[in-house]
Amino acid sequence: MRPAGVNTLWPLYGDKRPFDKPTNGANVRTTIIHGPGDIRFEERPDPQIQSPGDAVVRVVRTCVCGSDLWSYRGVQPTPAPHPIGHEFIGVVEAVGADVTSVRVGDFVIAPFTDSDGTCVHCRNGITTSCVNFGFWGSVTRTGEPLDGAQGQYVRVPFADGTLVAVPDSPDEALYPHLLTLADVMSTGHHAAVSGNVHPGATVVVVGDGAVGLCTVLASKRLGAERIIVMSRHEDRQRLAQAFGATDVVAERGDDGIAAIEELLGGVGADSVLECVGTKDSMHQALGAVRPGGHLGFVGVPAGAPELPMRQLFNTNVHIAGGMATVRPYLDELLPDVLSGAIEPGRVFDLTLPLDRVADAYTAMDQRAAIKVLLEP
Amino acid sequence: MRPAGVNTLWPLYGDKRPFDKPTNGANVRTTIIHGPGDIRFEERPDPQIQSPGDAVVRVVRTCVCGSDLWSYRGVQPTPAPHPIGHEFIGVVEAVGADVTSVRVGDFVIAPFTDSDGTCVHCRNGITTSCVNFGFWGSVTRTGEPLDGAQGQYVRVPFADGTLVAVPDSPDEALYPHLLTLADVMSTGHHAAVSGNVHPGATVVVVGDGAVGLCTVLASKRLGAERIIVMSRHEDRQRLAQAFGATDVVAERGDDGIAAIEELLGGVGADSVLECVGTKDSMHQALGAVRPGGHLGFVGVPAGAPELPMRQLFNTNVHIAGGMATVRPYLDELLPDVLSGAIEPGRVFDLTLPLDRVADAYTAMDQRAAIKVLLEP
Repeated sequence: MRPAGVNTLWPLYGDKRPFDKPTNGANVRTTIIHGPGDIRFEERPDPQIQSPGDAVVRVVRTCVCGSDLWSYRGVQPTPAPHPIGHEFIGVVEAVGADVTSVRVGDFVIAPFTDSDGTCVHCRNGITTSCVNFGFWGSVTRTGEPLDGAQGQYVRVPFADGTLVAVPDSPDEALYPHLLTLADVMSTGHHAAVSGNVHPGATVVVVGDGAVGLCTVLASKRLGAERIIVMSRHEDRQRLAQAFGATDVVAERGDDGIAAIEELLGGVGADSVLECVGTKDSMHQALGAVRPGGHLGFVGVPAGAPELPMRQLFNTNVHIAGGMATVRPYLDELLPDVLSGAIEPGRVFDLTLPLDRVADAYTAMDQRAAIKVLLEP
Repeated sequence: MRPAGVNTLWPLYGDKRPFDKPTNGANVRTTIIHGPGDIRFEERPDPQIQSPGDAVVRVVRTCVCGSDLWSYRGVQPTPAPHPIGHEFIGVVEAVGADVTSVRVGDFVIAPFTDSDGTCVHCRNGITTSCVNFGFWGSVTRTGEPLDGAQGQYVRVPFADGTLVAVPDSPDEALYPHLLTLADVMSTGHHAAVSGNVHPGATVVVVGDGAVGLCTVLASKRLGAERIIVMSRHEDRQRLAQAFGATDVVAERGDDGIAAIEELLGGVGADSVLECVGTKDSMHQALGAVRPGGHLGFVGVPAGAPELPMRQLFNTNVHIAGGMATVRPYLDELLPDVLSGAIEPGRVFDLTLPLDRVADAYTAMDQRAAIKVLLEP
């Protein structure tokens, strides 16, 4: 029985506990956040098949996301300890009776959200609005607790609607690249698609985190001619250039907007891709887009920025974006990772064993690493 | 010499006077707004060619727009008397030496904005962001005063970039339909294009004014399968149905949203087209669009409504719209008016002689008419 109730569009574990589920008595280890700055790698009951549509996946690689830092830093409250992490790749260990698209032993990519694949929103391609939507480490819209990805095993409800099997068994060297498809590379692609990046386009990417860098790569992949990345960190600038950035603007705010206009001959960019989510970054993005251009945004909005209607009205700027609909994008992106055409896993600049997950958070929090890969 | 200076994206006549221009001594009559509720049909100097790119057009039909009521009602201040009206069709009476696309005697449609046709924004199709942009009855971005459309003659700067000649001399019965191309029909088309209306789409139109009604017609023309119009006025409901609306929702706010969801099987519409511009109408529009759907808006934003980023992020709704880029749309819409395929001029339900323009404003203000046609 799936409990009815809580309808949340964003992870808030609420009063649900990760331990209220059937167990065979065995324990595995997973990452639990207890409060700001308090990340622990703890024992918990071994995930089991609970519904005929479930799969259980042994995690092969996972990682820490910039958005995990929200609760780590206390920006998002942690009312009760809960599992955390939403990016993983792994091997299917068990499947329920109804699962048809993946089999035991398959190497799979899990999008950062759970989706049933059958509801009207999934059929429309908007898996992030699935009626059974859930974010790993949170609860689904129907109130079902989900395991976190920074653990040894994850139970995946609606395995057919969620998991994508990688053909054959991928070489270990591909793991980092495949893992980015779970979130950051697919999110970068979502930014570029939402922002109408097309062959010949001029593009500005606001943000040089892992998502911003993948957005550069996605823009290059879609044929952008000019890609300006806004970045003040030399190591990130270098990686952005390796991913296809043609120009770097280190200035921010109005100075940054002026620098972009100068690079583009006095006109804004065809596409501006916002990968931060603050009021300042959105102001910068709006200022950098040309009349009639497109603003694609994937930065999780913090501090409730709002869009000025009058400015949009006067400039005919298009706005689109949000949570990346990873599942339908995988058909398009996976072949390019398997062929080596794109190497998004280069955003990982630190690798740690999974049991040092707390150190991974510290490194991300202190900006000592762009993104930390974790090996169970 | 074009004066430098005032850069405004919206009509505010400011301290410029409509009479500060060369004259041959003859006078013609035009509509001047002196303040809220104070519309006068007054003498003014005969418009002359001032620059080699100018044309002078004798107005054959003009009309009153819902947005003219803003200053009539005092919502928009009138710091000094200024000409008003921005929709007209007419016959070219004179052209400057550099004009090549229209000739004396041509029957022309004038978009509601002046545009040079050569700047980067015009080349991008965003004529409303032209560096020489101006709104009839206002001043251009470079500070040049423009005649109002509710007059006997209008001087058109940048005639080549602004006017479109109608092939042959159209039958008088076509005048109302042709006049709507200057604004309301083209604006309805802009709403539908901005809102991604396509064959088979489900569409909601918020607003039953002339623009809302033309938006219904434009949606039908673009192949929408289901068109729900939100309207509480029987005469407008009937015209909406004649234009292609399949359903009418009279409820507003959350009741209206619920009624739409029920009509569409529990899901929002693919496209919601906002043709009002208030905070309430935008709330209604956002509530009626499905996840991943499109919100096209053409209602001039009043009361500075802002878009909630977090809601957009969670739902992946696309937002686009603004001032209609009429000039590039005319190539597509004019043939359909000439062939009789569309009859947008049916939005005019009252015709008055131009010298009774004050009565036209009263009728519009009191909602005694949807839209008033004026005959010089």
